[in-house]
Amino acid sequence: MTTSTVGIIGLGAMGAGIAKTLRDRGHNVAVCDVRPGAAEAFAAQGGTACANPAEVAAISQVVVSVVVNAAQTEAVLFGEHGAAATMQAGATFIMCSTVDPNWSVAMEGRLNALGLHYIDAPISGGAAKAASGQMTMMTSAKPEAYAAAGKVLDDMAGKVYRLGDCAGAGSKVKIINQLLAGVHIAVAAEAMALGLREGVKADALYDVITNSAGNSWMFENRMAHVLAGDYTPLSAVDIFVKDLGLVLDTARATKFPLPLAATAHQMFMQASTAGFAKEDDSAVIKIFPGITLPEAKA
Amino acid sequence: MTTSTVGIIGLGAMGAGIAKTLRDRGHNVAVCDVRPGAAEAFAAQGGTACANPAEVAAISQVVVSVVVNAAQTEAVLFGEHGAAATMQAGATFIMCSTVDPNWSVAMEGRLNALGLHYIDAPISGGAAKAASGQMTMMTSAKPEAYAAAGKVLDDMAGKVYRLGDCAGAGSKVKIINQLLAGVHIAVAAEAMALGLREGVKADALYDVITNSAGNSWMFENRMAHVLAGDYTPLSAVDIFVKDLGLVLDTARATKFPLPLAATAHQMFMQASTAGFAKEDDSAVIKIFPGITLPEAKA
Repeated sequence: MTTSTVGIIGLGAMGAGIAKTLRDRGHNVAVCDVRPGAAEAFAAQGGTACANPAEVAAISQVVVSVVVNAAQTEAVLFGEHGAAATMQAGATFIMCSTVDPNWSVAMEGRLNALGLHYIDAPISGGAAKAASGQMTMMTSAKPEAYAAAGKVLDDMAGKVYRLGDCAGAGSKVKIINQLLAGVHIAVAAEAMALGLREGVKADALYDVITNSAGNSWMFENRMAHVLAGDYTPLSAVDIFVKDLGLVLDTARATKFPLPLAATAHQMFMQASTAGFAKEDDSAVIKIFPGITLPEAKA
Repeated sequence: MTTSTVGIIGLGAMGAGIAKTLRDRGHNVAVCDVRPGAAEAFAAQGGTACANPAEVAAISQVVVSVVVNAAQTEAVLFGEHGAAATMQAGATFIMCSTVDPNWSVAMEGRLNALGLHYIDAPISGGAAKAASGQMTMMTSAKPEAYAAAGKVLDDMAGKVYRLGDCAGAGSKVKIINQLLAGVHIAVAAEAMALGLREGVKADALYDVITNSAGNSWMFENRMAHVLAGDYTPLSAVDIFVKDLGLVLDTARATKFPLPLAATAHQMFMQASTAGFAKEDDSAVIKIFPGITLPEAKA
């Protein structure tokens, strides 16, 4: 082919934004999604709608997988109509999910054995940044994989960190970010809950903390949801049940203690099972008894 | 008097900066400190050196107490040569320490009964900001106390939050900030320790996190100390043993659970008793086994 095609498997909040960004930046894109009609809706503005990962992979030199977890990535590659069977020798698989780093290392070996390149490439930044090409990627890969698909990486994101010369480092840095993000959300909730318990004005507390040394990116972002009484999920409680679970699994493999991540994981599980699994992750504040939360504006 | 005098009791890192700022902004200042010679050294550049709190209070309309904790504040007011005995009726006591909010509420009552005003006014920002007049104050007080000493407050700091119309709210917001700050330092250490355990390059991890949603003010500030291998105390491990203890005491008074603050408190106590009590609070990372920390540059 004179112009190569990039395949995007998974058109959720992040995948749709990535596909749009690559299309905007002049790439031929081929897309598929498990939801009927999603690929066709995207391709109405440009690009090729495919029925499944195998069809995408058959016409793409670079395949970008933007699904929820390792199990879905396994299915994308090796399930019915999976991509691995149709990818061409020398093609590259870019793995964007948040996964156990040890799983990602193993996947690099499995794909290399098939003559395929692999890039460990978790993403961060949210749907809006994915759609505007401003998201962050935490990547690691062998030099030949970067040589084959580095241009596509750079066109997907605003910032592409290259963290090592084989799979693993990208996923490790991603889960360490999730460790911090999860604990920061949970402690933001704990702090705001204590303020409400003590009768501090919530708006004033937010104003002081966001201008003080106690601030975090997550406090500033998520406690705005609590003040607004709006638990519409941007990222749900169950995402952190999963991601902090991955963090703990990774550390357990070398018997490494993570007291704060373990505590925060318990808090998100408590919130999930109490009925808030699909609410915004800031709903972890609902596990605290004896307080009255701000209500949604009418 | 035609020009009033402000007394500053305690010329430690914060008190010396506050006294300098008030002097720079045209106030007559009277100072004392338990360390022999400290008051005289300060007064050599302007101001009146006093031998003890009673002498300071006898010539000051506003007395600012900048000592470590509630016990020292008690001694400043009611100990030998204490300030309470010599403060003039209608004078104002500004309490800048981090204390149990319930103690601060009680102190307001005790001083009001003596005909004195009281401002609950914990401070934040560090020595450099105190000296340049840029620190933050989290205050609450009765309107008559603000009327008597609000001008002095505004001259002490870059930002003066007025959080309520009696004592308590200032100290509550301060300890909530300390809850967040303490947990953020401990989780920053936990995350960096996991990265080291997993063989991630520490500098690269710092670069990614400080540009991602996992960032906090404390991660960015304190992990720079860890990367430099420099545990010279700016704020020591034992400060968070104390401050998270205050947080937990406050919450215990209403039987309110704080799972993350309780876990972080255990981590700082472990660091303290393991021999790192007087090191920088980022030395909490030294409780993690099985890792090699960056060494100090030669």
